[in-house]
Amino acid sequence: MTHRVHNFCAGPCTLPLEVLEEAQSEFVDYRGAGMSIIEMSHRSKDYDAVHQEAIALSREVYNVPDDFGVSFIQGGATLQFAMVPMNLLGAGERGAYVDSGSWGSAAIRDAKPHGDIYTVWDGSSEGYTRMPSNDELELQPNTRYLHVTSNETIGGIRMTEWPDVDVPLVVDMSSDYMSRPVPWGKFDLVYGGAQKNLGPAGMAVVFVRKSVLESSNRNLATYLRYDIHHDKDSLFNTPPVFAIYMLSKVLTWMKNKGGLSVIESEAAEKAALIYDVIDDGNYYHSPVSAEHRSHMNVVFRLPSEELEAKFLAEAKDAELLNLKGHRSVGGCRASIYNAMPKESVEALAGFMRDFQSANG
Amino acid sequence: MTHRVHNFCAGPCTLPLEVLEEAQSEFVDYRGAGMSIIEMSHRSKDYDAVHQEAIALSREVYNVPDDFGVSFIQGGATLQFAMVPMNLLGAGERGAYVDSGSWGSAAIRDAKPHGDIYTVWDGSSEGYTRMPSNDELELQPNTRYLHVTSNETIGGIRMTEWPDVDVPLVVDMSSDYMSRPVPWGKFDLVYGGAQKNLGPAGMAVVFVRKSVLESSNRNLATYLRYDIHHDKDSLFNTPPVFAIYMLSKVLTWMKNKGGLSVIESEAAEKAALIYDVIDDGNYYHSPVSAEHRSHMNVVFRLPSEELEAKFLAEAKDAELLNLKGHRSVGGCRASIYNAMPKESVEALAGFMRDFQSANG
Repeated sequence: MTHRVHNFCAGPCTLPLEVLEEAQSEFVDYRGAGMSIIEMSHRSKDYDAVHQEAIALSREVYNVPDDFGVSFIQGGATLQFAMVPMNLLGAGERGAYVDSGSWGSAAIRDAKPHGDIYTVWDGSSEGYTRMPSNDELELQPNTRYLHVTSNETIGGIRMTEWPDVDVPLVVDMSSDYMSRPVPWGKFDLVYGGAQKNLGPAGMAVVFVRKSVLESSNRNLATYLRYDIHHDKDSLFNTPPVFAIYMLSKVLTWMKNKGGLSVIESEAAEKAALIYDVIDDGNYYHSPVSAEHRSHMNVVFRLPSEELEAKFLAEAKDAELLNLKGHRSVGGCRASIYNAMPKESVEALAGFMRDFQSANG
Repeated sequence: MTHRVHNFCAGPCTLPLEVLEEAQSEFVDYRGAGMSIIEMSHRSKDYDAVHQEAIALSREVYNVPDDFGVSFIQGGATLQFAMVPMNLLGAGERGAYVDSGSWGSAAIRDAKPHGDIYTVWDGSSEGYTRMPSNDELELQPNTRYLHVTSNETIGGIRMTEWPDVDVPLVVDMSSDYMSRPVPWGKFDLVYGGAQKNLGPAGMAVVFVRKSVLESSNRNLATYLRYDIHHDKDSLFNTPPVFAIYMLSKVLTWMKNKGGLSVIESEAAEKAALIYDVIDDGNYYHSPVSAEHRSHMNVVFRLPSEELEAKFLAEAKDAELLNLKGHRSVGGCRASIYNAMPKESVEALAGFMRDFQSANG
């Protein structure tokens, strides 16, 4: 039997075991082709079937309406931080940004050199422990879009109510991509790195409204243009073949599970297993607003940093790995993305209760 | 025994069988870690060892001097077309470009929106059948760099003499990367997509002179800045873990073979096997200048397009695959990168002779 640890890493992270095993079995000789999928021309019939399946399943699993295109673009969410203002902001237009944590801040940092942007709400003074409410979002004139981060991986908060504003939303969904239904009507553009819910690191999956593609900036190098990626089905230049191949397998796995509604309820159940331990007594505590608690990244603290260090060391001995909070915030964090088995979350919850009993 | 065809694809392309087999064997459980390499944190000890090895071997195998840094950047050579002028051109400075074929043209197309650039030599009127000679390269005032493509994948030509000009060279080496020693003293920047000689598609390997990093443009989003990629060891954001992991294995394979000098002489031998058939009699012919014939992409024509179609069909039956020339030029092309076994090239040469006898 395959040795599997409980891997709570924030990304790259746990992928479905059956997906890994299937990829392994056909890795050297892809279905009798006499070559690996990574040795194939990206214009070949075999690869094209994989590529088109990844496109179709991305749309199907996420219930994407026809007026959005999907592209696979290298550079992760980080390159998207630049491409969004480059493509979307015309002369005299501004981008509004919500600074909800590390990733909201990063999007702002990288948009600044490429467009006229401003921060409409800044959660830093509250330690990034909540998302803004709608009446805190006062947009300035000539705002083209409002950029938000649906889930802050490091802070462990998520948007539960989507902003209701007069401009379209642009959303970085990296860390809760395809984990719940989303209101497509509010969006002009949605992007996220693949390496949490969708496969290995190496690309972003980007959905862009077709009317936006028609009016986006053409005076950019081809790789930086959404219209080119879309019009060429992400095959203008050599695509990240292996990442797309793995995406198609992960999406098939999601579809076979029952799709988004099953994944959403499983995510809620898994998160509740840990939040229940946190809320049960006053040993563990959560630093974030109850209503914005993430279902993907559960952050928690112990009564002291000494106990946190002991907790992490003993968890490691039990093969409960990568539970240390991000270095910028400390504490503990369990990342429990779509592919994290419920059994692993149960093992963690049990371990937390045992640790509390022994060290309470 | 593993079924292997002879895959002459121009990229993605044949990789060393032993590299594929090793990756397969450890794909689900990486060396007892209880997880796949693609499930690991990019900050983990296991992955970091792979990452640092890829950096060290890139330098070692290519004999890179200490005054160059190396970075792994997603987006392939195509994103580099944009990043080069964005980072290197200061106010009043111009980039000079050699248009030696499809890739030289693409570099020009993508540089134009991001800097003041001009074409110093254009091979299109001669059908892109040769590289320029040194006295054809008259640079204009305020030229910051001369951009050249060391090997044109589609045209099948390569630089045999490096330009001797008063400015540093910037070189797209995608299709002959690490296939021969290169004169580092002439370069400010060297880049190439990994998917030919270095592994799967999904990133470019970029060498930048350290003095260039110090003066490069800071007013760009982080992903577009060479200095950030370099200073953070390509770990500023999540790197393309699988591509880097495979690169480290391919480089190990190259090193174990005997390194660059062995690879260079093997490439010359393999190319000669096909060029000898082409030159022997007047059945096949090469459309390109004898002195600039590529050792990576051997293009050739048959006496008629009908015979070319028959040749390709019969080659396919013999599992000699992907020999069709690029749609923009027609004819035939055998891409024989570093990992192409000599036996496959011998099989092709034998097939070409047999076809000539049967159809001459």
